[in-house]
This record gives sequence, C-alpha cells and structure tokens, in this order.
Amino acid sequence: MIAAQRPMVQSLLDGVARIGADPPGITREAYGRGENEAMALLAGAAQALDLDCSFDAGANLTMRWPGTDPEAPPILVGSHLDSVVQGGNFDGAAGVIAGLAAVAALQASGVRPRAGIEVLALRCEEAVWFGLGLIGSRSLLARLPAGALALPHARSGLTLGQSIAACGGDPARLANGVPLRDPKTLGAYLEVHIEQAPQLIEAEQAVAICLANPGNVRHPRIRISGEDAHTGLPHRFRRDAALAGAEFALALERLWLEEDRAGRPMAVTIGRFHTLADRHAMTVVPGQFELSLDLRAYDPTHLARLEARLQAIAAEVGAARDVTIALGERSAAAPGAMEAGIVAGLARAAGKLGLAAPRLNSPGSHDANNFAAAGVPTGMLLVRNANGSHNPHEAMATDDLLAATGVLALFLAEHAA
Amino acid sequence: MIAAQRPMVQSLLDGVARIGADPPGITREAYGRGENEAMALLAGAAQALDLDCSFDAGANLTMRWPGTDPEAPPILVGSHLDSVVQGGNFDGAAGVIAGLAAVAALQASGVRPRAGIEVLALRCEEAVWFGLGLIGSRSLLARLPAGALALPHARSGLTLGQSIAACGGDPARLANGVPLRDPKTLGAYLEVHIEQAPQLIEAEQAVAICLANPGNVRHPRIRISGEDAHTGLPHRFRRDAALAGAEFALALERLWLEEDRAGRPMAVTIGRFHTLADRHAMTVVPGQFELSLDLRAYDPTHLARLEARLQAIAAEVGAARDVTIALGERSAAAPGAMEAGIVAGLARAAGKLGLAAPRLNSPGSHDANNFAAAGVPTGMLLVRNANGSHNPHEAMATDDLLAATGVLALFLAEHAA
Repeated sequence: MIAAQRPMVQSLLDGVARIGADPPGITREAYGRGENEAMALLAGAAQALDLDCSFDAGANLTMRWPGTDPEAPPILVGSHLDSVVQGGNFDGAAGVIAGLAAVAALQASGVRPRAGIEVLALRCEEAVWFGLGLIGSRSLLARLPAGALALPHARSGLTLGQSIAACGGDPARLANGVPLRDPKTLGAYLEVHIEQAPQLIEAEQAVAICLANPGNVRHPRIRISGEDAHTGLPHRFRRDAALAGAEFALALERLWLEEDRAGRPMAVTIGRFHTLADRHAMTVVPGQFELSLDLRAYDPTHLARLEARLQAIAAEVGAARDVTIALGERSAAAPGAMEAGIVAGLARAAGKLGLAAPRLNSPGSHDANNFAAAGVPTGMLLVRNANGSHNPHEAMATDDLLAATGVLALFLAEHAA
Repeated sequence: MIAAQRPMVQSLLDGVARIGADPPGITREAYGRGENEAMALLAGAAQALDLDCSFDAGANLTMRWPGTDPEAPPILVGSHLDSVVQGGNFDGAAGVIAGLAAVAALQASGVRPRAGIEVLALRCEEAVWFGLGLIGSRSLLARLPAGALALPHARSGLTLGQSIAACGGDPARLANGVPLRDPKTLGAYLEVHIEQAPQLIEAEQAVAICLANPGNVRHPRIRISGEDAHTGLPHRFRRDAALAGAEFALALERLWLEEDRAGRPMAVTIGRFHTLADRHAMTVVPGQFELSLDLRAYDPTHLARLEARLQAIAAEVGAARDVTIALGERSAAAPGAMEAGIVAGLARAAGKLGLAAPRLNSPGSHDANNFAAAGVPTGMLLVRNANGSHNPHEAMATDDLLAATGVLALFLAEHAA
C-alpha cells in the first residue's frame, strides 16, 4: 500500500530540497525563508489530502485528519523542517513527509481511524539558530527554559519571541507555563527520523525502532581567558587560552572513550572551537578562546555524573595553565525513553511487513524527547542514512523512507483504530 | 646628556599613542592611517633637529644627519612604526624615537660625527597585516619573497604593492632583486626595541645587549580537513578536524618543551586556532579547522630539524585521526646573529654609563634580522618591558628607554667618530 505514495514522497523531498538549496548543502533557516516555504509546501500537500491546517502560538504547523470519534485522544506524527547551515535535506523534513504519506496511504486503503491523526511540522529543532534546540516542541509543551524568548537568532538577530511573532505566532502564550496542547489529552507522539550514525548502514537494515534518545547538557559559549602575548614570550610565562582549549577538549574526549569502553554510552561534541576573529593573529599568543559543548547520555544519573566530571576537568586545566575556564550559560534536555507499548506495536507492524527493524538507541536528541518528558506515550522509527546528518552528504534512499512510512501507517491503522 | 632629551622622548611617545589610540590598546595599521600619521609626527621632530627626511621606494622614512665625511659608510638606527591590532605603544615606535633622541643628544653635546647617522622608520614589521613580517626592511634590502607584492592587506584588501604605492612608494623597484641601499655601503644597523619576554624584569636590569634574534618558519594558514557530522555520530565514525587541531597543537607544544629541556631554545606560537565561523555550530562535529603557526629558533640547522619534525607530526596526527593536515603557504626568515664588534662596543658604552646590560638572545625576530642576513654589521639593545608585547598591557618606563638611548648615543659617538 505504501509503494503508491512514492511519487508524492519523492516530489515533496525534492520540493524541500529546492527550497533549501545552498550548494553544496541545504540550509532551511528556522523562522526564516527556508522553514516558512517548506511549511507552505507541506500545507499544500496536506490540503490536497483534505487535512485541516493550522498554526499554533509557537508557529508550528498542525495538519489534522479528524477521526471518527472526536473524544478519542489524537495521535501526533511529527518532526521538524529547519536544517543546520549547509546541512542535508533529510534531517527533519523526511519525518514530516513520512507522516503525510502514512495518512495518504491509510486514506488510499480506505481506513478511517477512530482517533484523529495530526501531522506536525515543528519549528527550529536545530540548536544552531538560538543556541538551544527542540524549540518547536518546547513551545508546544511549555518546556522553554526561562529567558529563551530573549535569545537572539544567529542570523537575523531577532529574539526568539520576535521570530515567533514574525511567523504569526503568539510568544506571550509560550511563557505562561501552560502547554498549547495538554499532554494528557494526547494519545501518542510518533516520529520518523533519519539515523545520524550509520548503525543501520552497518547492520544493512532499512529501519530501526528507537529505544531511547539521549538527554544533553549544553554550554553554547565556554570562555577561556589567559593573556595575549608576543610570539617571543617563553613558555613559562605564557597563559595561552587556545592551548588550554586544546587540552580541555582532549580531556573530554578521553572521558568519552573511557565511558564507551566501560559500556556507558555518551557523546561529547565541540562544534565551535576558536580563537577570536577580531583579535587573533599569527604573531599573538592567544589570550582568549571560545568553544561550545554538547554532552549527551541516556541516563539522567549518568548525565549528572558526567557534568560533575566536566566541572572538575575545567578546574584542573584552568589551574594547570593559569587560565580561567568559564562554562557560562547552560541548557539541558532530559533523556527520552520510548514507551514500551509503542515500541512493541512498531515491532509488530515491522514484523508484518517482513522488516527485521533492530531496536537501537538513537545517538541524537529529537523533538520526541519533549513529548516523552511531558508524559506522552512516544515512539520513533529511525531510517537508514549514510554519512551522518548535519552535513551536505546525508544519503537516505527514498525506498528506506517508504519502508519506515509503511511501518508507521500499519501502526497507525492498529493504534488509531 | 640623555636626561635633557626626556621631554622630547615623552612627547613623541605620547604623540604616537594618541595616533594609535584604539582602547584598550593601540592599533597603528601598516600602510594605513596610524603608521602614516606616526611617520609624519616623527618627520616633524626630525626636521626640528635639521635632519633630511625622505621616503624610499618601499615608503620607509629615512631621517638623515649627514656626517663630516661624505665617504664614510653611514650608520643606520631604525625600527618600525606599525603595531598589531590592539597592541601596545612601544613595540617598534620606541626604537625610532630612541634613534631621534640619540641624535638630539649628540647634537646637544656638540658631537659632529664623521659618518652620517640615519634614523629609519620602517613600514609593516608586524606579520598581522599581510601574513608576512619585516616587510619594510625586506623592501629596503630586496628580501621580499616571490609573490609578496600580491598579498592582500588584512583590513584594506589592497595588495602589498598597491599599499606601498598608496603611500608614495614604487613597488616596481622592489621586485627587481636590487636592494634600495647596497648593504656593502652601510656601516652598521642598530635597533633599540622593547623586550617581548620579561627577562629584564626578572633580572631587574633596564637594558640588555642582544646576541641573536631567532629565525622563523611560518605557515599562516594550516588547513585540517575531516568531515562535518552530527552530534550523534559515535566516536569511531568521526573525523573531527578540531580535535585533530588540538592534538597537533599539543604535540608541537611537547616538542617545544623537550627542546627547551635539552637546552635548544625555540618557540612555537599558534595565534589563530579555529573552526570556521561561517559553518561551525554547537551541534555539528567540525570537519574543517584552521590554524597559523610560527616556529622559531636561533640556529639554521636546528630550525631545519624542527621543520622536519613539524611535517612528521602533521602526518602522524592526520593518519591517526583520518584527516588531512595541509601546511599550505610557508614563509621563512633567517636567524640573525648580532656582530661581535658591535656587541662589544655596546657593552663598552653601557659599562661607561654604569649599566650591567646583560647579553641575551631576543625571543622575537626584528628588522635587524634582515640587515644581519644582508651582511650589514648589526646590533640591538633590548629595553625592559613588563607584560610582553603585542598586547595593550606593554609597560616600558621612559627612564629605561632613556638608558638605552644613552648607550646608543655613546656607541654612535665612538663608532661614527
């Protein structure tokens, strides 16, 4: 029943790629042209399927297919439409398209579910835009941290509140602690997403059922302060902030490798790592250095222990090199475990379709984390993808996305029945 | 005889500070407003001393006090007037001012030397402007490397050739291999410069006599290429260019410390060390990284051996982390040994003035390197300076500069007699 959806799926994948074209990659700026145009494209496709389209106060797009029983808690299927700068086409968008295609497949096969199915196109999942990720689902579920609406957009400079308002949202409603949708009224949240590590490429499987997403602790702007000095300064006098940064980064990498060997999965990513462009020079010993840090793990206790190690390492390296390492602003996202019943249901659907569908931990955090943390029964399907994500070389076969869509549609047919 | 020059010295130091004011530091841009205005200020002071002022084809300023014997090879006293961005006031300018003050002191004491004394204000000693240092003295002595005139200025974007022409120079004359002054016709080159390491602060001495300046090998833009990837990518799949940069930098630092312990003085400076501002992000494993490198030592054989180690380290780190480390463009400056007779003469002059004047290696390269390499008998005096140079906290006492000026004047009185 899914093969018939291939033309629509391919046409929407190609459409969002054209919208985001920024050779050699794809850029769909959150609350900007790329995300807005991708929303308009998918809303058009949803209207062709007779879905009701509306935007919530966070400017997220909901594409609703009413069920036969207005009292049945609706099932949400969502993902995001923004991308990183010079990223790939599939991280986010593929999941929203899979949601629409699953609805189309159910309609085509004559199913009319009891519970409504709502396909969600969420805003700004990527942390590149505001130094904070998962913003669309945080907005929906009243999970924005204090002060988030005042964060500046990396490109436009508008605050998050201004950005949401510019897209027709109502930021005032996001700061009052009341979720836009009461989690207790939601039947489930499902998300299809490309894998970010090539675990399915290694396993030669099209689809995996996710067991858990990691939580994270993030410091978007760690500042190391030593002292600028001349190239001629002997080593014993130097307070080189960049070399302190190098030592700090490699110490965190060693921590990661030790934990990996001990069977405690985690990850460390230092995405920004730099001397300051307005003052660095070939013949100046750098006195200032900045880096970002994303520390992730699957268990809240483990994550807390890692954070304590982070603080100890910063203090040790700072003392050894006579620099200060200020961790600065901090954000955190709770680890998200998938609901056992949904995991079992997805596995049943995959089995009926003859897919092995291994059960894996996701290496990445997703909007699903917020739904899980809010108590909504949550499940995810991961789609095989070579070359990771957040880069122009993401490579997902449309056939693999269709396989995941098939599992999703079959699950929805049973779960929403 | 020197104390009487204090008002002029202080007024000129204050004048070039006002010209370069860029709080909290000093910026005198090469071939730009700061350097040009400082040249005009010093030319005015030189005219008040009846010196003949002229600009050469490299736009360097020569302030000439003719001797009684037109056949006697002139003695040059020089330094530079540019600064790094947000540097201090004394690196360079103090030496030119000392030259003028020494001439003023000799005039005041009624000395009329046989050999002419020429105070040189050289252009663009700092490598920040074109990724190549010592440009004024290279221009004078036909020591510009091939292609140098096409290098772009870091701020204006003009090529070096255009920058020189814009200051009234004649870049065509700098590329024909013929020095603007024949080194064989020059009696000596003397330079007063603040120390860049606080060796005299530690020794509690005002002035040192320099024994040698280091040569260097520089790579202004080393590029490390791995692959951009998502935060979720497991460690075994990552090709993180920034962590490769961290390992590369710390390996070079270890090499330095080993050589230091073995009594082979050298230095490593990595002034620019950064992920790329147009693509780095908190949730992207950085696939690209750049750094600059300045490697310096006092002996040509030692420097060649260090360069071979640099290449080996780049290959090792690149292989271990599956990234490429491209050293890219290279420039080099020969180590500059001071002439024994001049060192002895300066020591005699210092002794007569009751100054201990220890003999030290300079940690920094200077325009003196080019004169020494061209075969001109060369000497340098280093002036006590706290807090290093190339930063806003340079701190040289005017009294210490006057002490060095006294040694210089006494040396000139004897040497030019």
